Amino acid sequence: MSKQWIVYLSGEIHTDWRERIQSGAQAAGLDVSFVSPVTDHASSDDVGVNILGKEDDSFWHDHKGAGINAIRTQTLIKDADIVVVRFGDKYRQWNAAFDAGYAAALGKSIITLHDPALTHALKEVDRAANAVCESPEQVVEILEYVINKR
Amino acid sequence: MSKQWIVYLSGEIHTDWRERIQSGAQAAGLDVSFVSPVTDHASSDDVGVNILGKEDDSFWHDHKGAGINAIRTQTLIKDADIVVVRFGDKYRQWNAAFDAGYAAALGKSIITLHDPALTHALKEVDRAANAVCESPEQVVEILEYVINKR
Amino acid sequence: MSKQWIVYLSGEIHTDWRERIQSGAQAAGLDVSFVSPVTDHASSDDVGVNILGKEDDSFWHDHKGAGINAIRTQTLIKDADIVVVRFGDKYRQWNAAFDAGYAAALGKSIITLHDPALTHALKEVDRAANAVCESPEQVVEILEYVINKR
Amino acid sequence: MSKQWIVYLSGEIHTDWRERIQSGAQAAGLDVSFVSPVTDHASSDDVGVNILGKEDDSFWHDHKGAGINAIRTQTLIKDADIVVVRFGDKYRQWNAAFDAGYAAALGKSIITLHDPALTHALKEVDRAANAVCESPEQVVEILEYVINKR
Amino acid sequence: MSKQWIVYLSGEIHTDWRERIQSGAQAAGLDVSFVSPVTDHASSDDVGVNILGKEDDSFWHDHKGAGINAIRTQTLIKDADIVVVRFGDKYRQWNAAFDAGYAAALGKSIITLHDPALTHALKEVDRAANAVCESPEQVVEILEYVINKR
Amino acid sequence: MSKQWIVYLSGEIHTDWRERIQSGAQAAGLDVSFVSPVTDHASSDDVGVNILGKEDDSFWHDHKGAGINAIRTQTLIKDADIVVVRFGDKYRQWNAAFDAGYAAALGKSIITLHDPALTHALKEVDRAANAVCESPEQVVEILEYVINKR
Amino acid sequence: MSKQWIVYLSGEIHTDWRERIQSGAQAAGLDVSFVSPVTDHASSDDVGVNILGKEDDSFWHDHKGAGINAIRTQTLIKDADIVVVRFGDKYRQWNAAFDAGYAAALGKSIITLHDPALTHALKEVDRAANAVCESPEQVVEILEYVINKR
Amino acid sequence: MSKQWIVYLSGEIHTDWRERIQSGAQAAGLDVSFVSPVTDHASSDDVGVNILGKEDDSFWHDHKGAGINAIRTQTLIKDADIVVVRFGDKYRQWNAAFDAGYAAALGKSIITLHDPALTHALKEVDRAANAVCESPEQVVEILEYVINKR
Repeated sequence: MSKQWIVYLSGEIHTDWRERIQSGAQAAGLDVSFVSPVTDHASSDDVGVNILGKEDDSFWHDHKGAGINAIRTQTLIKDADIVVVRFGDKYRQWNAAFDAGYAAALGKSIITLHDPALTHALKEVDRAANAVCESPEQVVEILEYVINKR
Repeated sequence: MSKQWIVYLSGEIHTDWRERIQSGAQAAGLDVSFVSPVTDHASSDDVGVNILGKEDDSFWHDHKGAGINAIRTQTLIKDADIVVVRFGDKYRQWNAAFDAGYAAALGKSIITLHDPALTHALKEVDRAANAVCESPEQVVEILEYVINKR
Repeated sequence: MSKQWIVYLSGEIHTDWRERIQSGAQAAGLDVSFVSPVTDHASSDDVGVNILGKEDDSFWHDHKGAGINAIRTQTLIKDADIVVVRFGDKYRQWNAAFDAGYAAALGKSIITLHDPALTHALKEVDRAANAVCESPEQVVEILEYVINKR
Repeated sequence: MSKQWIVYLSGEIHTDWRERIQSGAQAAGLDVSFVSPVTDHASSDDVGVNILGKEDDSFWHDHKGAGINAIRTQTLIKDADIVVVRFGDKYRQWNAAFDAGYAAALGKSIITLHDPALTHALKEVDRAANAVCESPEQVVEILEYVINKR
Repeated sequence: MSKQWIVYLSGEIHTDWRERIQSGAQAAGLDVSFVSPVTDHASSDDVGVNILGKEDDSFWHDHKGAGINAIRTQTLIKDADIVVVRFGDKYRQWNAAFDAGYAAALGKSIITLHDPALTHALKEVDRAANAVCESPEQVVEILEYVINKR
Repeated sequence: MSKQWIVYLSGEIHTDWRERIQSGAQAAGLDVSFVSPVTDHASSDDVGVNILGKEDDSFWHDHKGAGINAIRTQTLIKDADIVVVRFGDKYRQWNAAFDAGYAAALGKSIITLHDPALTHALKEVDRAANAVCESPEQVVEILEYVINKR
Repeated sequence: MSKQWIVYLSGEIHTDWRERIQSGAQAAGLDVSFVSPVTDHASSDDVGVNILGKEDDSFWHDHKGAGINAIRTQTLIKDADIVVVRFGDKYRQWNAAFDAGYAAALGKSIITLHDPALTHALKEVDRAANAVCESPEQVVEILEYVINKR
Repeated sequence: MSKQWIVYLSGEIHTDWRERIQSGAQAAGLDVSFVSPVTDHASSDDVGVNILGKEDDSFWHDHKGAGINAIRTQTLIKDADIVVVRFGDKYRQWNAAFDAGYAAALGKSIITLHDPALTHALKEVDRAANAVCESPEQVVEILEYVINKR
């Protein structure tokens, strides 16, 4: 099977879950291209004004940045076979839930990754997922099964 | 113009914002069919087990309910011309952000409704919206303009 | 909410499950248009040759009939909001599973209806469903919740 | 013609039909990428609980596994140019019929492969197919004609 | 079943086949809206120059007319549930075959209507059809079965 | 033929071309629902800040208004069977050309309406149109032919 | 520009127009993958019965063959950027017109290639085309312009 | 990330903005395939009659050329991830606005590039864009962020 799978890693940017999935997949020899939003918080927040000029109003500051980030996120989600959505224990993370809804409407396969403590709050998102994981290692095991299992 | 507009009201279920939009639209004589998720919290949470049988594990309790609720929410969002997404100041409200992402991928017009305090956290959702409102009355004004203005 | 829901009732034609759902929905005052394949077994099997002329080979006998039946089934499934798929304890019922796959790819909400004894054999179909029921009355309860619950 | 064709081999996992098609295609020098569901029965049945944790209820055992398998099957069917669906003489094989319906709604070319004894029961599935074969060798001949014939 | 079916009648304009289908459907009490291209030959040929001004070159004469006719034919085919395509024994009738291809790519149900003498020449079109008829009365019987049969 | 046609009237707002088309269609007894953007220039320009609050920067003033107007224009173009795009002799009218491109990608039938002096500048837009008119009366004649001609 | 264009060559199989286009494109150094239906008349007509077994009735003989040919033609048309449709002076060539309609509904760019004597009969097909050519050399010139012109 | 991004550069052909974006992207080491309409004005205007024969009427002269140019522009916009639309200070540039509308309906990411003096006239186009730039260098910075930023 010669297909290169495209896996979009959406959500939390404050722990090393992306690295653990990527290194796990590499160790398993999986033919995967991992794609992500920009995960440098300050760069992501300020990209709009950094490139297109200052805004006094923070709403437009955010709006400009979100427009540029959406070029990346929406293009890459459209390209993806699988969207992994990670929810951590901090912040609102509405962008992660937004990505999940976006992916669901496009018919993408979704894997969620979060602590069981968030189960009730995430029930609609989890229902749209093919699998609900608690650890990055489980995500890697799923990828390994889906991609390489005979 | 004889079109009946379909407006889906997504999100927060603990304040009267839906009623204020609906009564405002009625007062303005707008030809709108408003649709919503089930807004009775307990019914919504327990519908799965109430109809399909008990679950010991709360994950499956939620899963069953979310499946039935999705029949309603996804069908009605697909039918809608406009999706209004309300974020309140309590709870995680990931289902609201999920609905917004779902609507965005389907090319629906989106109006968000929330306090300015949430602006930064909602920047990706707001960027996908045609308008960002702070009060239900602003939503009514937009509907009135969009539907009836010559 | 003024929407008339369209519910396609696919599958088994040898018990009264359709009647039980339809009369239950009527008793509950639901605004539903129920649609179905032709449920008269002989008519359905022979419609091709009855209208278009005899075939010596039973393969083409079936082929002609299946073509005409597909005009009805595929048009009505495309129109439907919800597809209920019933599996009984007799026959192969591959057409029911085919309808479920067809509906799934179109993004329709699916409700399956079958005895728990079939659970393992139907796991792929059930996974694509929003709800898995054992009785027609459960289907009615779901419709009532989805359509009329505030 | 430089196109690599993608052929999904759906259905029965208890005979060597996949191997016969693949070796036949290789012998004919066809540029085909064959893809399949996981064909190891136990792995496929238990993948959900093996990776995501035990379930007491066999329904959820199956549900978890079917979710992970669907990542693979639905992604690969979407990628495919042709879906070959094999029905054997054992088991219910509703997943095969589901795959056929799924492929049909996506507009994929379908080839069915089964004994003539199953013709009547498979008439709806066969009607959606471009060709109905009795042997893997016929499938290979079709692929050879479709891909390489001048 | 309250659905009004939309049936597009494409092709030959020199015999009374449309009238026979329409009166047959009316006699059978079918809820069908029949739609057609303009069937007045001269009006159809000259509509472009009649409305938009003369052309010296017959190519542009035809081009202008075909553009206006396509507004009608393509809109109504998109609206249709079923496209009936009639081939007579005169003229090239490439527009009928074009309509059939157009309908096939949109996933419409197709019924062809022609003399068996044309079978070999129409094999690709017939293969895309759900039914191949020789008389308008057979088309009516199919509509009656598809629309009203229990 | 019971279809009500939906015709979107895009472009210039400074002459009476919409009224002439609408009154012509009414005189001809056509079953058409005409839809349009808001044609009151000041209301359209200022709707964003009027409803959602002032902006110091004219870019955001325009941006807010354009977002609300897009709810109307994009929803109604999606609903339309035919999009008539009028170019006058003043202003840039890039929104009209944008609407034409939007409609073209959605597969809508397009009729352009402009003075021959604009022909060269509008060649790409006209090429995407089914008909190119110089007067509103020609548009009415086309609608009459398309909708009512036998 | 590194794109390899895919050009489907549909229609007449009795003259050397395909070879002239292909050699012209090669001489011009164009990066094109040309794809075609099977152009060996006898193979194409008999492929169904040759692989799948004899039929007494010529209708089913044709039907079987057309099913297999459609795997190739419909897959390759879906892949194509441009569909060139050639009409010669012999035979009905309804399959060519069918391909043109199929391509048009998929939004493909179409180039027709035929003698001016066929202009009136092909007006609907030509209207759906981006260009109408009389010689294979014109097709090559268009490809050269479209693909390589700066 | 191994994706090659496809960026379509639409609009003005009289300044060196394309070269500045392309050389900037090359300097930044971005993996981008830039595609464009034909930017040689005379070739573009006359391609129709040059290849397909003279026209006396300038309308058809333009029409023939626009048909051939549309093969290129619409195919490449469909392929693109991002469409950059440049408006200069001369000419009507309705084709640029048309491309923007076309891209918007296809869900492409759009970047506009123009002088602030055009802001009010371009407000509908800018509203559909993810970013509004004043210099080619800003476009390069966005591409660099979107494609290469970690």
